Amino acid sequence: MRATLIYGAGDVRVETVPDPKLREPTDAVVRVLRSCVCGTDLHPYRSMPASAQGVPMGHEFLGVVEDVGADVATLRHGDVVIAPFAFSDGTCEFCQEGLQTACVNGGFFATGDVGGAQAEAVRVPLADGTLVKVPGNVAADEDSPLLPSLLTLSDVFVTGHHAAVRAKVSPRTAVAVIGDGAVGLSAVLAAKRLGAERIVLMGHHTDRTELGRELGATDIVAERGAEGVEKVRALTGGGVHAVLEAVGYRDAYDTAVGVVRAGGVISRAGVPQYVEAPVGFESLFFRNITLTGGPTPVRAYIEELLPDVLDGTIDPGRVFDRAVGLDEAPEGYRAMNDRQSIKVLIRP
Amino acid sequence: MRATLIYGAGDVRVETVPDPKLREPTDAVVRVLRSCVCGTDLHPYRSMPASAQGVPMGHEFLGVVEDVGADVATLRHGDVVIAPFAFSDGTCEFCQEGLQTACVNGGFFATGDVGGAQAEAVRVPLADGTLVKVPGNVAADEDSPLLPSLLTLSDVFVTGHHAAVRAKVSPRTAVAVIGDGAVGLSAVLAAKRLGAERIVLMGHHTDRTELGRELGATDIVAERGAEGVEKVRALTGGGVHAVLEAVGYRDAYDTAVGVVRAGGVISRAGVPQYVEAPVGFESLFFRNITLTGGPTPVRAYIEELLPDVLDGTIDPGRVFDRAVGLDEAPEGYRAMNDRQSIKVLIRP
Repeated sequence: MRATLIYGAGDVRVETVPDPKLREPTDAVVRVLRSCVCGTDLHPYRSMPASAQGVPMGHEFLGVVEDVGADVATLRHGDVVIAPFAFSDGTCEFCQEGLQTACVNGGFFATGDVGGAQAEAVRVPLADGTLVKVPGNVAADEDSPLLPSLLTLSDVFVTGHHAAVRAKVSPRTAVAVIGDGAVGLSAVLAAKRLGAERIVLMGHHTDRTELGRELGATDIVAERGAEGVEKVRALTGGGVHAVLEAVGYRDAYDTAVGVVRAGGVISRAGVPQYVEAPVGFESLFFRNITLTGGPTPVRAYIEELLPDVLDGTIDPGRVFDRAVGLDEAPEGYRAMNDRQSIKVLIRP
Repeated sequence: MRATLIYGAGDVRVETVPDPKLREPTDAVVRVLRSCVCGTDLHPYRSMPASAQGVPMGHEFLGVVEDVGADVATLRHGDVVIAPFAFSDGTCEFCQEGLQTACVNGGFFATGDVGGAQAEAVRVPLADGTLVKVPGNVAADEDSPLLPSLLTLSDVFVTGHHAAVRAKVSPRTAVAVIGDGAVGLSAVLAAKRLGAERIVLMGHHTDRTELGRELGATDIVAERGAEGVEKVRALTGGGVHAVLEAVGYRDAYDTAVGVVRAGGVISRAGVPQYVEAPVGFESLFFRNITLTGGPTPVRAYIEELLPDVLDGTIDPGRVFDRAVGLDEAPEGYRAMNDRQSIKVLIRP
């Protein structure tokens, strides 16, 4: 089959690799209907040392079950399924608590001996625990306009949702979303879905913030640093209850500390690119600020979010502003890295 | 009246100062029945530069209303009241949310023009919002054995409770309490009261950890650093859901990060004596750890906790292992600083 591999910064290739096959009786093999490029994929795209050995890429996908192992009980050939970016057994103490990213038997796609999703097919370990079947025939049409939104339930929209849930977003919370990338825009939509009436989006790419407004942002703050903090504080009477930080850099953390109000929550969706940060008396403690967030246990949320996608209540697939075929995956990386595209969908 | 002032490290004096009087129509003047020395009082005791001007000390007290301003509606002469260490108006948006330490009109005893509680009497601003009347005649007896426990509702027990609430302690959570001082011991009792069945107390003062066991600790870990972390992880099958950090030093933070399990909460009751700490991918993010805590909005919790003290369900006053008269306050500081006493009660 064809699959996307990265060999170093800027060096993404689509190559022919062996077809994935069942290895364990709990595996499934899924043919990929849709995949995409994640903001985190851009980290190796920017900084990976050149290597003779390619690394498989992609961890978000929607597909059709091709084959299942002998112990797979809930899936069969032809089922359309959403794959969370982490696989999980569904039975361990962490899975039962809804923290499938900490599953004691789980792991992540495109790591170790599990292939990437920017490919024609993927071997899915622990298929019963991992995959969520899309009900009905909605995805039998492989051109269905619902597929992009269903794909966002593999990672990006759910990541915005997890940040909002961890920040306790409700109709009573004023929210600031830091970052107008695909995760930030997803966080806006997630906050809107949870009832937030005041959602300030901090971003300075007009095309993105305009989409943010359509997804639910009530205010846009383009200023950065201290100026941006002051503007958010002025707009919200002293700061917000919930900050959804969707960037991951240290200046975004500092902005979050600046815009959160006493008793509020900083919920991080962006993977932190720093090790230490202020957490002492002045930054967090004196104001009883809570810092939370982490890799989204996508599997815990799909059933709750799926009906809203299926009935059109939300359309999180709007974060995709470009679609490419699998062989064009390198162009997708380039477009996202150059900020010509918010998020690139891949159709193998 | 007599009052305690500090003039520099190690230099605590009890002096005659002007009697407190009503200044605002919302004030009350309260005669102090019981006060005490707080762990945070030891910070200036250890490090305050010498000063010609004494600073009033003490922020925990239980007393009798002597006088009230014209606008005070809910209190009158003779009422026995508990004073939270922060005064608050009870009406602002933060007070209504239960975060009285962020009251827009509030403040703290022994700061600015508000006197300290290690004294014969205190002027209480915003008396209606601040003071909680103790029902019945229980404290009419100024020697009542309930007074020490009632006094803990001014700060120390409620601080343990706030940490436990913020950490979502429930019967299902395994808890680690870091620190065997009065706040740590209070956190043990608070976790027990909230139903925790597994409470590991990390401390190495045998007399204190023995009291911790009586208050609800199921396990004692005397080891510190990596060794202590390993022991807690081994005892709890990989770490605890809730860490109540009652020390405030950076090594206690690192211990908290070490003993918390994925998805868990680090709740800080100890005032952080550091500015930055690890909060990145490895320390907190990858495992979805939440960091929370801050100055306790004592006023939000007193009504809930008071019945359990009055009926003897809990006896949080056991953290007091020495009582002194007001003129002996300097000796109380010395004893606590030298770890000869866990917490010293002052009876003016």
